[in-house]
Amino acid sequence: MAGGSGTRFWPASRSARPKQMLPLAAGVPLITATIDRLAGLVAPERTWVVTNAAQVDGLRALVPALPRAQFVVEPEPRDTAPCIALAAATIAAREPRATMVAMPADHVITPVATFHAAVRRAATLAADDRTLVTFGVQPTRPATGFGYIECGARLDDGAPAACRAARFREKPDADTAAAFLAAGTFLWNSGIFVWTIPALLAAMRTTAPELGAATERMIAGGAAGPDAVAAAFRTAPRTSIDFAVMERAERVAVVRADFGWNDVGGFTALDTVVDGDGDGNHALLAAGSAFLPCQSTRNLVFAEGGRTVCLFGVDDLVVVDTDDAVMVCPRARADELKQLVEHVRSRHPELL
Amino acid sequence: MAGGSGTRFWPASRSARPKQMLPLAAGVPLITATIDRLAGLVAPERTWVVTNAAQVDGLRALVPALPRAQFVVEPEPRDTAPCIALAAATIAAREPRATMVAMPADHVITPVATFHAAVRRAATLAADDRTLVTFGVQPTRPATGFGYIECGARLDDGAPAACRAARFREKPDADTAAAFLAAGTFLWNSGIFVWTIPALLAAMRTTAPELGAATERMIAGGAAGPDAVAAAFRTAPRTSIDFAVMERAERVAVVRADFGWNDVGGFTALDTVVDGDGDGNHALLAAGSAFLPCQSTRNLVFAEGGRTVCLFGVDDLVVVDTDDAVMVCPRARADELKQLVEHVRSRHPELL
Repeated sequence: MAGGSGTRFWPASRSARPKQMLPLAAGVPLITATIDRLAGLVAPERTWVVTNAAQVDGLRALVPALPRAQFVVEPEPRDTAPCIALAAATIAAREPRATMVAMPADHVITPVATFHAAVRRAATLAADDRTLVTFGVQPTRPATGFGYIECGARLDDGAPAACRAARFREKPDADTAAAFLAAGTFLWNSGIFVWTIPALLAAMRTTAPELGAATERMIAGGAAGPDAVAAAFRTAPRTSIDFAVMERAERVAVVRADFGWNDVGGFTALDTVVDGDGDGNHALLAAGSAFLPCQSTRNLVFAEGGRTVCLFGVDDLVVVDTDDAVMVCPRARADELKQLVEHVRSRHPELL
Repeated sequence: MAGGSGTRFWPASRSARPKQMLPLAAGVPLITATIDRLAGLVAPERTWVVTNAAQVDGLRALVPALPRAQFVVEPEPRDTAPCIALAAATIAAREPRATMVAMPADHVITPVATFHAAVRRAATLAADDRTLVTFGVQPTRPATGFGYIECGARLDDGAPAACRAARFREKPDADTAAAFLAAGTFLWNSGIFVWTIPALLAAMRTTAPELGAATERMIAGGAAGPDAVAAAFRTAPRTSIDFAVMERAERVAVVRADFGWNDVGGFTALDTVVDGDGDGNHALLAAGSAFLPCQSTRNLVFAEGGRTVCLFGVDDLVVVDTDDAVMVCPRARADELKQLVEHVRSRHPELL
């Protein structure tokens, strides 16, 4: 899933260059790191990138090893459920009983071997053609930006540990998040899923009949060509796979993610993807850019405009330098960046 | 006098592009505005720009109407006394009894007509070949960054008002500055002077014999060529004209500057040279640059990198955007920018 157009990294991210194209994985674009991570797990000709028309060229350029035909373009943005349905239809047309791994293209996940082992474990659980599997991340703070999964009965003695999903909870308020953390039985919903095509279609038929029917039409339309698939895609309800399927499905298993997982939610996450200096400044610098702090602490810098970013006597700022825009905001307000983006939309839409 | 290499506007100002080349006069470079201001007062072939080798090409490009021969290059930087001596020698070689007006190239002065009238008034006072004339600016705040002149007896009934200079005082501390302001008899030393060549030479002979002798050698060397003048220049003591001559001369008159005078001492002066928006943000923008504040107040922006500077939720910052550097500092610390410049000198000297 590489079609998102986040605004949380503006002005580094743009409509044609969203977060998944930013070099947030140790200097490597997230999409590149995501595809690289699959080496040895899924063959290139069985790997599909679902994106949109504005981004497909940029993504292809960042993943030159993946054949061009592996990029699937959504006819229009309709949230994750139709996206996954389109991917499932693309796979089902070739291999109707395939095991499918669905994952966002914009997460940082390490180490690779641990991730592979977790996916193989999930694939084993999914092999009964009835179970949908997700990965749950051990919470480290009462985050309000993630969905949570409450763990039920442990499934078996395999590793990593897996349990039934007792309940899905959408992004909670701060008090609820604190209670989840204290309870110790809640995991963050990683947004990564494993299932077989038959299991997904069966679950859709029960939990989201309209979505299931649209998916069946996409599969059937495959023989008739892209226009038929696009027409079917447009009949799928605009909804998320979590809401439409995962929260309602009967047999959902949760594999505990023992790999490092970081969804790099915005500039405030820069301190998790790039080392800091002795003063707590974290700077992600493209080639040609430099950072020169002086009497400045705890700033987050993203620079790819080929300039030197000099800070003098400032603390706790986010400073972003790109070819055509410079952005400064307090670190504490970086999560509200959408307000600035709306302002930019009305004044300088060419910068979005 | 256009040889200064201020660090207070870094990274907008550089060694080869000092403050006098910055578009701080209503978007016009200060040197251009300074020369334009002389139209109708001093003919181009009697106007001299004293600068240094690194800056002369840039200055010539900004004042194309002034013949190239009018630019005098100092052999080395030696403060204002040798600079003025070199200018005086250049003038004296052509017109030994000329009236000379010496002024910094990096001040904003308006309106032109009022300035012309004040200079003419000063020239009248200087015509006795014994009086050195300076312009005093009515203080509006207890500034510690300027020298002060204490006014003595009023000279005559001419306009603008003129008085004897009772005493020169160097940059005072805050308490002294407050006392000067309260006394009401102190004016800021504008750094603009009017005298005849004979009066200047006579004063030097008394107050700074070494400087006077060096100046005489520069005058004499003019016939022998630039090398002789340069050799003589290098024998002049490194000192300021205020310290060497003005503070010690017997007959100094002060003409009250009834024109608007602004030495644009640093980024904190941006709010005096460019209008603000409704939130107190002042942005000086070169063509191609733009400014987009959002929930941000009282910021000072200097942008000439051709980008859009976006501020979100920040107050009282200075943000500077140039082709190769971005600088952010609190407005309250902009006067300490020299510390950053020293830091840059050790890490990125190519940016100075």
